Amino acid sequence: MIKTVAIQGVKGSFHHIVSQQYFGDQIIVKDCLTFDEAVHSLITGKTDAVVMALENSIAGSIIPNYALIDHHNLHIVGEHYLDVQHHLMALPNQSIDDIFEVYSHPMALLQCKEFFRKHSRIKLIEDKDTAEVAQRIQNKSLKGVAAIASKLASEIFELNIISESIQTIKHNETRFVIVKRENHEIPEEEINKASIKFELEHKRGSLATLLNVMSDCKLNLTKIQSLPKIETPWKYAFFVDVTFNDYEDYKKAKSIIEIMSEAFKILGEYKNTK
Amino acid sequence: MIKTVAIQGVKGSFHHIVSQQYFGDQIIVKDCLTFDEAVHSLITGKTDAVVMALENSIAGSIIPNYALIDHHNLHIVGEHYLDVQHHLMALPNQSIDDIFEVYSHPMALLQCKEFFRKHSRIKLIEDKDTAEVAQRIQNKSLKGVAAIASKLASEIFELNIISESIQTIKHNETRFVIVKRENHEIPEEEINKASIKFELEHKRGSLATLLNVMSDCKLNLTKIQSLPKIETPWKYAFFVDVTFNDYEDYKKAKSIIEIMSEAFKILGEYKNTK
Repeated sequence: MIKTVAIQGVKGSFHHIVSQQYFGDQIIVKDCLTFDEAVHSLITGKTDAVVMALENSIAGSIIPNYALIDHHNLHIVGEHYLDVQHHLMALPNQSIDDIFEVYSHPMALLQCKEFFRKHSRIKLIEDKDTAEVAQRIQNKSLKGVAAIASKLASEIFELNIISESIQTIKHNETRFVIVKRENHEIPEEEINKASIKFELEHKRGSLATLLNVMSDCKLNLTKIQSLPKIETPWKYAFFVDVTFNDYEDYKKAKSIIEIMSEAFKILGEYKNTK
Repeated sequence: MIKTVAIQGVKGSFHHIVSQQYFGDQIIVKDCLTFDEAVHSLITGKTDAVVMALENSIAGSIIPNYALIDHHNLHIVGEHYLDVQHHLMALPNQSIDDIFEVYSHPMALLQCKEFFRKHSRIKLIEDKDTAEVAQRIQNKSLKGVAAIASKLASEIFELNIISESIQTIKHNETRFVIVKRENHEIPEEEINKASIKFELEHKRGSLATLLNVMSDCKLNLTKIQSLPKIETPWKYAFFVDVTFNDYEDYKKAKSIIEIMSEAFKILGEYKNTK
């Protein structure tokens, strides 16, 4: 039973919203200012799970978060999709012309790049969290400063939304995952998605052969990405997501891939929610 | 014959270094503050080529640059690898304890994240270019402010390097590409690498079948990435790089892939420099 969940952000952050939608209101949420801090709280047993953004429509995969899961041998036990709408907000009675600085999370700044091209005099400053900036603007009554954050954050911290949905891609879905220390806890028959990682010899056709195995075992590929190996630039590992109807099919594929590839690793086995 | 090359950055930037290494000293370099501006100068005929970072060891692919090449139907005509070493620099006689703000390009900030974890009181601020900050510190004699930039930038703008090679990954290779309006200009027999894009029906084994064709045609896969289609979240396109010994093999594969996939597109045919 999950009791305490670590999130990157404070109340009103997108991770907070996901933790509420996924776990309901009965959990204790531990605010962390970075993903590293959230993962640290999980590893040291201070929390039971971490909610973590993993993929979005503009930046693709959030590679540093993949690296955190992989490096600490953590497990993805669930996924959740959220349509992330970024709003520009400030103290009441401030208009866009009053704003000279916007603080937000780097990913939010990246997703709203187009909007700020029309307001190039506004300085964009990286910050730890979207909602924490909203909180700071309220606490310190900061004029001339705006946050990019969720509608919930504007409500909690009583800020005025200057401009709605300023992200470049209007339907801006982000994939979050639930990460724990141990592997899956749901019954095998409910598992129909897995995230795996493997490395291959740089030999012609080696990836094709492996994908053939997956296809023969009735696995559907929903994501594939070759990635440079840290400290061994341009040697690649593969991160792959697969869905399936029958856990037995997946088990069969798994045992073959394990033999055919190097450094095979299961990042998570969970329920597909897409 | 290339005469004018657009780069993201000013003199002393990593793109400037790549443009010199690739084209030599006889070209005119046009400084642009964004990749968009560089691409715009190419499209409108003000420049003959653009130098563009495309991949690095921490963030993986720089997806927004892939999108620029794809969206404007530009062509990759060459590639160049640079070992990017980031140095922290400020006015002479400033030590790390004097610094309270660091301005740099978002990618440089990301690559040096670990270093600044030990100096959490320093505010990190996104800026347009690494070297342009170095220039500004010199021009305005800014105290308390540091730049993250190349050794060349510290020499040009007479700044003192406070801390050398502060990026997390010490051997930090970045892949740059040379982009033009028209397709390749070198003879077919010299071409041994290609970047292609295609979409596939979400049908089991469709990617495996396509990779089999590539393997049968003696193509080596050096990169594969599934990517969400802009404005159609979670429908994926594939970006693939292949190398080959014989252009005829590639031509054969190309004609088959064109039939078997949707929206097939060649992003570039060029010489492998790895």
